Amino acid sequence: MSDSSLKNKFEFILVEPSHPGNIGASARAIKNMGFRNLSLINPKDFPNDDAFYRAKGAKDILENIKIYEDLSAALNEATLIFGTSARTRTIPWPTKTSSELTSILKKALESSNAKICFLFGREISGLSNEELQMCDYHIKIPTDEDFSSINLSHAVQIISYVLTMELDTFDYPTNANKDVPTFQDNEYLIEHFDKVMKLIEFYDQENPKQVKTRIRRLVKRLQPDKLETGILRGFLAKVEQILNKKN
Amino acid sequence: MSDSSLKNKFEFILVEPSHPGNIGASARAIKNMGFRNLSLINPKDFPNDDAFYRAKGAKDILENIKIYEDLSAALNEATLIFGTSARTRTIPWPTKTSSELTSILKKALESSNAKICFLFGREISGLSNEELQMCDYHIKIPTDEDFSSINLSHAVQIISYVLTMELDTFDYPTNANKDVPTFQDNEYLIEHFDKVMKLIEFYDQENPKQVKTRIRRLVKRLQPDKLETGILRGFLAKVEQILNKKN
Repeated sequence: MSDSSLKNKFEFILVEPSHPGNIGASARAIKNMGFRNLSLINPKDFPNDDAFYRAKGAKDILENIKIYEDLSAALNEATLIFGTSARTRTIPWPTKTSSELTSILKKALESSNAKICFLFGREISGLSNEELQMCDYHIKIPTDEDFSSINLSHAVQIISYVLTMELDTFDYPTNANKDVPTFQDNEYLIEHFDKVMKLIEFYDQENPKQVKTRIRRLVKRLQPDKLETGILRGFLAKVEQILNKKN
Repeated sequence: MSDSSLKNKFEFILVEPSHPGNIGASARAIKNMGFRNLSLINPKDFPNDDAFYRAKGAKDILENIKIYEDLSAALNEATLIFGTSARTRTIPWPTKTSSELTSILKKALESSNAKICFLFGREISGLSNEELQMCDYHIKIPTDEDFSSINLSHAVQIISYVLTMELDTFDYPTNANKDVPTFQDNEYLIEHFDKVMKLIEFYDQENPKQVKTRIRRLVKRLQPDKLETGILRGFLAKVEQILNKKN
């Protein structure tokens, strides 16, 4: 597999960026490292001259940028999602430092439909809890404890640099042919669980959202393959069918 | 040795930066990684509001910035100098990729007077040949071959990130007490060679500069300790003395 076709399996997604300069600087940053795919969710101001000025020789990246109103639409085909975050969350999520990426990436690139997304949050507030829960892993760029707020395009630069270093060190699988579930497949599974749990009135009425979050986390950690997803959804469908008959 | 006192042994030097925004963004980038020392050589426009705006919470770094008119003045106390460069030079210089830094840094940090400088060149043209020849090593940030021009503050971010990762992996020497020659000591040695070579009319009249460059490279590669520097300079002084007596 050539380096460029490998790098095409990666996508950088900026969620609601405020400063167009950061969009341009991010385009330049990823192109410097040989990546090409940049997406925006609800940018405050784009297209914008400042973005094109800061992109310098990476204007082609901006011309091919994808813009979405909704993060989950951008993630539909994703097979692996990393969210960058500096914060600690109530419900702990698998958090990886950049140096732990190798084995995760290796496994993900074995699938024929690999699409690996890196999410970067808003300049001021980062990613929301809901957005972070869409991710398979959280990734924290190590910083000085007293000054952890990294400029958006600088964070993109570090991650794209680290990825390039990682991809340079390992042998790529020559016959990637395993089809793995996408973000959307997993969402269907989570929703299916949610539906059945409502049906059986499983939810603690006090805190239904917490239970769904835990199911979501469970599915993300499990990373079921297509067959397993099929089995789980078949099981849920069967439960549904029986309950619906009973009522 | 604590992490912060270790990181105080590092200095980031921007040579003739044009855009004040890059100075501010570089200050933020190094502070994110726990470094504090930033110097400027002949900045085009500093102090400047845009620099302070882009620095965000790193305004203290800008307030303590050192400004020099001359690069060699900034380097006087340096014991190890890295120059960042994307270009290939006529005279090959030891070029290190970021992953080869560990052993070099380890050795440098064993000395009690360690001061490790990283030079970053102009936005458009980088470091001059003369400036690169002041360095012990050249360092090239790996990029896509077709688009190698990294934004100045992004280059500072990558190097400070890589340094932080390197410094996190190794045990610091507990009793650093070896005094190593500084940039200035080495310059005196190179000048001394130059002087004696002129005295003995050694230089090829066609290309005297080339010979001095080769002597400079030789001294940089040799990295003599204080004792060896003393021996070499003693030897040169003796040659001088004899020749001056003869004339």
